[in-house]
Amino acid sequence: MTNIELAKGTKNIEPELKLIRNRIISLITKTFELYGYSPLETPTLQRFDVLASKYAGGAEILKETFKLKDQGDRDLALRYDLTVPLSLYVALNPQVKLPFKRYEIGKVFRDGPISTVRFREFWQCDADIVGSSSILVDAECVNLFSTVFKELNLDIVIKVNNRKILDGIMDYSNIPNELRDSVILVIDKLEKIGIEGLKKELKEKKLSLEQIDKLVKLMDVKGNNKEKLNSIKKFIKDNQGIKEFEELIKYAPQIEFDLSLARGLSYYTGSIFEVKLKNSEMKVTVASGGRYDNMIGDFLQNGQKYPAVGISFGLDRIELLMKAEGKTLTKVYVIPIKQTEKASEIVQELRNNSINSDMDLMDRSISKNLDYANTYGIPYVVFVGEDEVKKNKFKLRDMKSGKEELLDIKDIVKKLQ
Amino acid sequence: MTNIELAKGTKNIEPELKLIRNRIISLITKTFELYGYSPLETPTLQRFDVLASKYAGGAEILKETFKLKDQGDRDLALRYDLTVPLSLYVALNPQVKLPFKRYEIGKVFRDGPISTVRFREFWQCDADIVGSSSILVDAECVNLFSTVFKELNLDIVIKVNNRKILDGIMDYSNIPNELRDSVILVIDKLEKIGIEGLKKELKEKKLSLEQIDKLVKLMDVKGNNKEKLNSIKKFIKDNQGIKEFEELIKYAPQIEFDLSLARGLSYYTGSIFEVKLKNSEMKVTVASGGRYDNMIGDFLQNGQKYPAVGISFGLDRIELLMKAEGKTLTKVYVIPIKQTEKASEIVQELRNNSINSDMDLMDRSISKNLDYANTYGIPYVVFVGEDEVKKNKFKLRDMKSGKEELLDIKDIVKKLQ
Repeated sequence: MTNIELAKGTKNIEPELKLIRNRIISLITKTFELYGYSPLETPTLQRFDVLASKYAGGAEILKETFKLKDQGDRDLALRYDLTVPLSLYVALNPQVKLPFKRYEIGKVFRDGPISTVRFREFWQCDADIVGSSSILVDAECVNLFSTVFKELNLDIVIKVNNRKILDGIMDYSNIPNELRDSVILVIDKLEKIGIEGLKKELKEKKLSLEQIDKLVKLMDVKGNNKEKLNSIKKFIKDNQGIKEFEELIKYAPQIEFDLSLARGLSYYTGSIFEVKLKNSEMKVTVASGGRYDNMIGDFLQNGQKYPAVGISFGLDRIELLMKAEGKTLTKVYVIPIKQTEKASEIVQELRNNSINSDMDLMDRSISKNLDYANTYGIPYVVFVGEDEVKKNKFKLRDMKSGKEELLDIKDIVKKLQ
Repeated sequence: MTNIELAKGTKNIEPELKLIRNRIISLITKTFELYGYSPLETPTLQRFDVLASKYAGGAEILKETFKLKDQGDRDLALRYDLTVPLSLYVALNPQVKLPFKRYEIGKVFRDGPISTVRFREFWQCDADIVGSSSILVDAECVNLFSTVFKELNLDIVIKVNNRKILDGIMDYSNIPNELRDSVILVIDKLEKIGIEGLKKELKEKKLSLEQIDKLVKLMDVKGNNKEKLNSIKKFIKDNQGIKEFEELIKYAPQIEFDLSLARGLSYYTGSIFEVKLKNSEMKVTVASGGRYDNMIGDFLQNGQKYPAVGISFGLDRIELLMKAEGKTLTKVYVIPIKQTEKASEIVQELRNNSINSDMDLMDRSISKNLDYANTYGIPYVVFVGEDEVKKNKFKLRDMKSGKEELLDIKDIVKKLQ
């Protein structure tokens, strides 16, 4: 073989980590279904013209799109997200009843710079509701965050802002339209750079002192949700975003108002969500999302409106947080001492009782078998020797304590269940 | 948007079908783990030179390989199976304890001719054991088939043959080496073409009458496993394949000896498996596999031997067989009649009790809401009106019978659990 190597920016997910990943995926799946979302599977291979169309993912992401051709010389690409394929699905299925609530968990591909945490293929884990402008949808997404992380036993903060409030702040501070996107990107960094850093970077944007003062005054409001709302309402009146936020809080009181939250993405039109760990030094975002009422309609250009809210879980990051767990799901390893048939019978009996079990398939010595069970972290072994077969009782060893018991199969099953 | 179209040879998997697929995947996963297999996730993107190397998938499959480049002009390809990535994993991880038992369920890609059942991206669902020559491994695979299809409630026949028996038959019939692969391909068609068809096609291969007579005599043996074995043992003596089959049958008596089974793949070296539905007009293969003791070693060329057995489940075919099931997993749909807050509270309560629930997010009329619940096949709805809120009892309607009951939330939960 010429090169025993993986492609750049890819990796094998070892069993140990993959078990954790599977467990997280199955938990999130269960919660999505609990909230009435249905699964959809869209193709990995897409037409290049679809992914490159004006209102799809945008120019930045297109640069990182893997292109290829089929044998018919058709231009194809690997999907870079799950949202464009969702939009395409809605376009291809105009009969779909709205709101359409779907989730998709699958791999996406980006040919970008790599690092220890950035790969060229990775999973996305999305739930979206297409077709409703109701704030109930926003509330449902927030509650979904709460349910998932409660199940995962992770303590989180759900930060919420609203793009219309940000627009209100821009109006109040007289920020011209052409500067707004870049000013919002600076505001988004507030947590990292602090108020002084914010002032400095805004100066670099050539804003006037008055503009900066107004902006900073609003970004610096303190207190609980109600106090923050009262503070900004003094300056920004009759703002639709504030009304939405006040309605949202009725259904999802656990949220935390964060005026600087923007998530960089210009397609958000209403609520913006970001979920972080509480009391943790890891300031990583474990989930995010928001309302994007224009994107699908713009993309489809069929004259219809498709208000939508979407959320996404950061599978890789959650995985790292959960990594402390075990190496294998196998509970017991059966070691035959020249009694292969009986051992094989016992393993089958254990499996019939839903106990994850395995046996020596290599005709190895006892010590090598114990070493194998140890390496994979299997908690119990059973020995099947001539004596045991005569008595019809078998030695069960707890690999952690070293304790051994002589039990019949029924009792071994009972003990391991 | 220019073209609202999917790429050729791809499709969206609608929620209805995807639910079934997920259920099958989770059942197979559970069974793999019950038998002591661990999950591995290999990359979709692979180096082209690895997939194209001499002992990888072979020339036929290479023609159907999607090629692409990354921005660094590296030659890449999309994986066409899960076996080459497994071999690569073993090569990259020489410390892995043998036998290495892994399963992988994931998408593979082939740029080949398409049909209503052949697509350019599809799932494979594989379990392989690398590193043991023991017949116990073969037996384990057979028992795994039995467990999976028992769980799926599908009645199956597991047909088994052995490549070494086929070789013995070739020896006995004096078939020259260079003709063997193509003669085996003809034999593999016996079920389809019958004994007369077999004779005809063998004649076309320019075999002598004596060669054909000998072959056909062995292919035409009848009876149960024991009778068939006794018949062929008269002609083929001291055959290692027969010994292996006789040992296998001790651990897995449910198998059916099928002398014509070859599965076309030249890399099988021992047992060959094919699983079909019993008493069904659908003669489709729902799972298959076999022992391939040389492939990984040949591929890695590191001087080591890697005996292996692998099996694969035909997800798409099993899916079609299971398709009769429901449209949604949502159990109850809550319809607020101007009582959104209370309705939202009820949905949350239901979800906290693990009942898959959903509510109107569109502020629609009652009849439109009932229509929506009907379309998605949701079995229950709950009405939340002013009167109900006063009484703190809510109308639960069984959508199938039309029967309605006035219940408090506790009783609704009890009823739906």
